[in-house]
Amino acid sequence: MFEMLPFLETKREGGNASPESMREFVKAYNAGELPDYQVAAWLMAVFFNGLSQEELEAFTLALAYSGKTVRFPEGLLPVDKHSTGGVGDKTTLVVVPLAAACGAKVAKLSGRGLGFTGGTVDKLSAIPGMSTELSVKEFVDQVISTGCAVSGHSKDLAPAEGKFYSLRDVTATVPSIPLITSSILSKKIAGGARRFVFDVKFGAGAFMETKERALELAGTLVELSTRLGFDAVAVLTNMEQPLGHWVGNTAEVNEAIEVLDGRGPEDTRDLCVEITGAMLYVSKVSPTIAEGKKTAAQALSKKLGLARFREMIEKQGGRLDENILSGKKSLPLGKDTLEVRAQKPGWVSSCDARLVGETLRLLGGGRLKKSDEVDLSAAVEVLKKTGDHVEAGDVLARIYASDEKILKIAVPKIEKAFSIGEEKTQRPGLVWGIRDARGFHPL
Amino acid sequence: MFEMLPFLETKREGGNASPESMREFVKAYNAGELPDYQVAAWLMAVFFNGLSQEELEAFTLALAYSGKTVRFPEGLLPVDKHSTGGVGDKTTLVVVPLAAACGAKVAKLSGRGLGFTGGTVDKLSAIPGMSTELSVKEFVDQVISTGCAVSGHSKDLAPAEGKFYSLRDVTATVPSIPLITSSILSKKIAGGARRFVFDVKFGAGAFMETKERALELAGTLVELSTRLGFDAVAVLTNMEQPLGHWVGNTAEVNEAIEVLDGRGPEDTRDLCVEITGAMLYVSKVSPTIAEGKKTAAQALSKKLGLARFREMIEKQGGRLDENILSGKKSLPLGKDTLEVRAQKPGWVSSCDARLVGETLRLLGGGRLKKSDEVDLSAAVEVLKKTGDHVEAGDVLARIYASDEKILKIAVPKIEKAFSIGEEKTQRPGLVWGIRDARGFHPL
Repeated sequence: MFEMLPFLETKREGGNASPESMREFVKAYNAGELPDYQVAAWLMAVFFNGLSQEELEAFTLALAYSGKTVRFPEGLLPVDKHSTGGVGDKTTLVVVPLAAACGAKVAKLSGRGLGFTGGTVDKLSAIPGMSTELSVKEFVDQVISTGCAVSGHSKDLAPAEGKFYSLRDVTATVPSIPLITSSILSKKIAGGARRFVFDVKFGAGAFMETKERALELAGTLVELSTRLGFDAVAVLTNMEQPLGHWVGNTAEVNEAIEVLDGRGPEDTRDLCVEITGAMLYVSKVSPTIAEGKKTAAQALSKKLGLARFREMIEKQGGRLDENILSGKKSLPLGKDTLEVRAQKPGWVSSCDARLVGETLRLLGGGRLKKSDEVDLSAAVEVLKKTGDHVEAGDVLARIYASDEKILKIAVPKIEKAFSIGEEKTQRPGLVWGIRDARGFHPL
Repeated sequence: MFEMLPFLETKREGGNASPESMREFVKAYNAGELPDYQVAAWLMAVFFNGLSQEELEAFTLALAYSGKTVRFPEGLLPVDKHSTGGVGDKTTLVVVPLAAACGAKVAKLSGRGLGFTGGTVDKLSAIPGMSTELSVKEFVDQVISTGCAVSGHSKDLAPAEGKFYSLRDVTATVPSIPLITSSILSKKIAGGARRFVFDVKFGAGAFMETKERALELAGTLVELSTRLGFDAVAVLTNMEQPLGHWVGNTAEVNEAIEVLDGRGPEDTRDLCVEITGAMLYVSKVSPTIAEGKKTAAQALSKKLGLARFREMIEKQGGRLDENILSGKKSLPLGKDTLEVRAQKPGWVSSCDARLVGETLRLLGGGRLKKSDEVDLSAAVEVLKKTGDHVEAGDVLARIYASDEKILKIAVPKIEKAFSIGEEKTQRPGLVWGIRDARGFHPL
């Protein structure tokens, strides 16, 4: 019989639980044997006192193995890529097929959007017919046959993680690095991946606002992965402004196809190459990340990722007509649009990713709570970004919705996102550096 | 509508809530509108980040006025004395009638014993016929007519305090000085007292083990009382070993009567005079604590406290025969006894109050949980105390129970309580000092 009070007192006093009692704790909570209020108090104690390395390992593994797990054939060690969440971040749509086209096996579990950030499952839902709820067998078979699959996270995998997360969400205990780390990694492990690339974002549109916190999270993710025997690297990236020119589910599919087709905005393309390079490195396809990036860039210019993307979505039931895949047409966006223009000339000094994300949510393209319906066709087109010069009257952004009235509500928010200064501003660097098992390497 | 999440985040980040939102918080929880898990997380955040002065004031008053309150006629400002809990601490039985006999108005609310500490309500229950559940009217009338009354804490008074306490008890958030302070003071305020003497104990048999923590609690209690407009002092006392020679509900009534009769052990008598002196001082009967102590000692030698004790228990339905009140007889204890003897000669270097308290509980005289039945006749007689010289074979303690088998179970615990060394040891000082609104005054 697990005794909760001494376990809770130990953490409150800054002590550490044994791996055995940590496993019993997770098992007991998952079985409904512990009241939420005791676990809530423990979560808050962890917020203040953290978890030791041994506790974090035991906790993560106990979450990971609390339900069903995806098992790949022996010797097949798939890679998963995880982003801590961003605005306009459509990289998954690009890097999954691109890395597969270069020889990696990619088993990607994705979530839905929440708050001001988007989710890959919503984006893929913008593709007619596309299934994002694969069975374990379909998922495994597709990774074997196609080299890549993307699926929503089934509730059968790491169910204890879901319980802890739900409680964290309502007890102000989400922003704890050990809890975030165990949450991310336990789901990935349950999903069968054994190699990881983490895209840890910082800035206004990121969960971790400062570089320091992002680096701390990246370090904890990579070190825990390594201790558990998994190759992992983290890419630290700037999320002050949205990635690319488009924010919105359907719109981001269009922009991802542009990138796969060898076009698209430079920042998005660069980040996709960086992440794919890291995926090829941890998958041991490439000896270094630099070599991986070269391989990825070549594959991109040969449109190998686009071919693999087409194959993947067809396998998952998706139907995109040839004109869309070849860039002659786009998936349709909300029919009503409104333009937001610069009031004065100058240089864009900031384009706040969080406010752009919130604008999308106001347009109906995001969720405040999990049960909210999403209008996939809502979008924000960001025409000017930090460092761009503008004249008075230039269009800064264009917003799309399927309901004219909604556009007006969103205008003040998107206006607030842009700041225009009189002095020339630098375009911010996108990738700050790489955190691998040996340490941090600024680029 | 009270919003719990921002309130919780503020405390987590070390910020402070407004008095208004603190009141709304207590009101919402008391009304059953907040889930326990959110309040549990808040309690743990308070454990780490504390409460500001303003928060503590607002929280305490909101608890105090969350239900019925006892109201005395204008100008009648009764004193209450609170002990943080001890072993063999029968002072309440002495100081309440003694202070009343000296002219103070004493409105004493008491609790039941729990864990290794005893409670006055249990002790009074050892007096045949004695009612410890007075109605508000009976309580007020008796304080007016007799000058003193002791009653169990009604659930109608400060009900929110009861809810918070129950949750603290199961979430490892009891040992938080602001939470202890608000818990103690809110109940006292609801009980109608407006002047306070706190007996804050430290040592093995105390809730606060170190002097430093005890002084911190004493300071918080006195300062909060003062800010709320109430005269208050705290007496800091040693609880390494039990107070007096007897531990057990019936036995402590006997020993209290001894003290009121001008006999009894020196330590108990000294502490009672100290506390009564403080009660007379905060009640403005005496100009200083020293003067109050003189008045108390004179009253004790004249047995004025004993007369008032007899009056008080008769008012509350208690029946003690004349031989008991005059010291010719005692209330009967458990019929089976066992003696624990010294194994070697030497000096008693410690007589651990906590272990003695736990022994009493094993004998059936205490509670592990609130619903446990108590054998009032179970007792531990402590014949040797720290600093006493013993020969091998001397009786250290005698234990009393109403069931022979139980005695054997308790022996190892009471044996463990005594340590005998080869070097002469000092008798420990009992009263360390006084904390009043101006600061700490060591004796």
